[in-house]
Amino acid sequence: MGGIVGGIADLTTPALIVDRAALEHNLAVMSEALPGDRLRPHVKAHKCTALARLQRDRGHRHFTCATIAEIEGMARAGLGDDLLLANEVLDARRLGRLDARVTVAVDSSATIAAAARGGVREVLIDVDVGLPRCGCRPEEAGALADLARKQGLSVRGVMGYEGHVVGLADRARRAAETEAAMAKLATAHADVGGEIVSAGGTGTYDLNRVATEIQAGSYALMDTAYAKLELPFRPALAVLATVISVAPGWAVVDAGLKSLCMDHGNPSVSGATVWFCSDEHITLGPLPSAERLAIAVGDRVGSGPRTSIPRSPTTLACT
Amino acid sequence: MGGIVGGIADLTTPALIVDRAALEHNLAVMSEALPGDRLRPHVKAHKCTALARLQRDRGHRHFTCATIAEIEGMARAGLGDDLLLANEVLDARRLGRLDARVTVAVDSSATIAAAARGGVREVLIDVDVGLPRCGCRPEEAGALADLARKQGLSVRGVMGYEGHVVGLADRARRAAETEAAMAKLATAHADVGGEIVSAGGTGTYDLNRVATEIQAGSYALMDTAYAKLELPFRPALAVLATVISVAPGWAVVDAGLKSLCMDHGNPSVSGATVWFCSDEHITLGPLPSAERLAIAVGDRVGSGPRTSIPRSPTTLACT
Repeated sequence: MGGIVGGIADLTTPALIVDRAALEHNLAVMSEALPGDRLRPHVKAHKCTALARLQRDRGHRHFTCATIAEIEGMARAGLGDDLLLANEVLDARRLGRLDARVTVAVDSSATIAAAARGGVREVLIDVDVGLPRCGCRPEEAGALADLARKQGLSVRGVMGYEGHVVGLADRARRAAETEAAMAKLATAHADVGGEIVSAGGTGTYDLNRVATEIQAGSYALMDTAYAKLELPFRPALAVLATVISVAPGWAVVDAGLKSLCMDHGNPSVSGATVWFCSDEHITLGPLPSAERLAIAVGDRVGSGPRTSIPRSPTTLACT
Repeated sequence: MGGIVGGIADLTTPALIVDRAALEHNLAVMSEALPGDRLRPHVKAHKCTALARLQRDRGHRHFTCATIAEIEGMARAGLGDDLLLANEVLDARRLGRLDARVTVAVDSSATIAAAARGGVREVLIDVDVGLPRCGCRPEEAGALADLARKQGLSVRGVMGYEGHVVGLADRARRAAETEAAMAKLATAHADVGGEIVSAGGTGTYDLNRVATEIQAGSYALMDTAYAKLELPFRPALAVLATVISVAPGWAVVDAGLKSLCMDHGNPSVSGATVWFCSDEHITLGPLPSAERLAIAVGDRVGSGPRTSIPRSPTTLACT
């Protein structure tokens, strides 16, 4: 079947594999569109310092993280020139003690107090631009910036993630809604000041005209959700699996729910129809156009996960 | 809100937490129903040698695993008296070199050859009893057993997992379909011989009259899918999270897709309605009966994952 992979036959399966050519293509396209500090790559998508180094080698020295653990991993790996934790935290002490430049998002008096108490020196005011998640209302941003400065924090600017927009299939609508979201962020920025307006993602990397830096991350490896948009990035990540059982009507491979992210549904397997996933299995049937699966025990197939890499204690450790 | 947890305030969140009293209740109930070797606890559900030791301390010395890595972890932890890999594998060399008694499931000439070549000495013939996954047809089991014995393997008996039955909500139907599935396994066993008939799960642990040993695993920690059946086991696992942002209409906690298993849908959070999960966030709204969420930044909530523990390189290492 189309998914059989050669040259990596000795890998223990399931194995998470990266198509190096597709990865390099993606990195090159993005670096040309958003050179240097115009891109602040989001490492939550790959959670891997080796990949972050490839991004730094293309000129992106500032990074975005989603968790304290990611910040800690990047600092340990010597990638701590300018790390933005684009998320609110209460246990900011873990950030304050790092040997790295760390800026954290704040959206309330409680998170400002936590940052000051934890020894963090720099913050961005996080603004709700339409995604019901973190972020203050735009009209509150100026007062929060004042509060932060009173507590001795340096306010570098604002951030606001248009996460409700990045996945819209229609490009014109995506552009229009990005503009509406960024109008809110610009209003907040006028009240807050500072040199940074941080926003954006893979779906809006070339549509966001307001952000001074784009926080895209998924572009490097991509996923099947973003693959449906007409973006110039290629799928670069798959789970390699071994066929362990073949029945007259179906076949079974040794990857399952515990190797895959299922938040966008079943994975795709080239040359086969995914019937269902169990903890450690995927049961495959033939394609609608085929009578049977041309597959044998011992064959290897690549199943594209629909989304990003699972959380793991070894995150940011593949140096 | 109801999910606020006291006494573990210093934990870094998100944290996977176990309700010890519920766990002990579950272990006690199962050990009374299926004492000693009548239960072969499946460790894929918890992937934790500390929990496996609690099961062994209640008299269960034989364990079921789903992956080679689980077998390796159990052997390293000194829990290798009698380990069943209830799954087909091609790279059986990793099993043959372990200092433990390992029995592996086989369902084809290829997996029998792999077991013999890899230095595994004992096998069970895996039989398809109705779940379209691994297992030979019942009428093929005898011939496969002969083939295995010709290759020097000891055939200890049969296994056949009624996974299509364990989750049926109606107990009478679950019982009837278990009986139908086990009739197939009994036929295969008559042809194969050996002392073991291994089958069953948490949903059928007291309904399966044919198996000599039950492979239940989920009973220890439970999950929200099994919680819908009328079983005497209590939910014992949750993800502890911290509220990091509160807006007029919603609140956000610091656990998300990468901390949760999503294969049965959104987690449940007591006292709140889950709106959606992002990589590192859950956005919560009020319950339908409430006007607003009584929640503040810094509060801690427990969100019950709908299913078992994610795959992780540290599996079976929390000794």
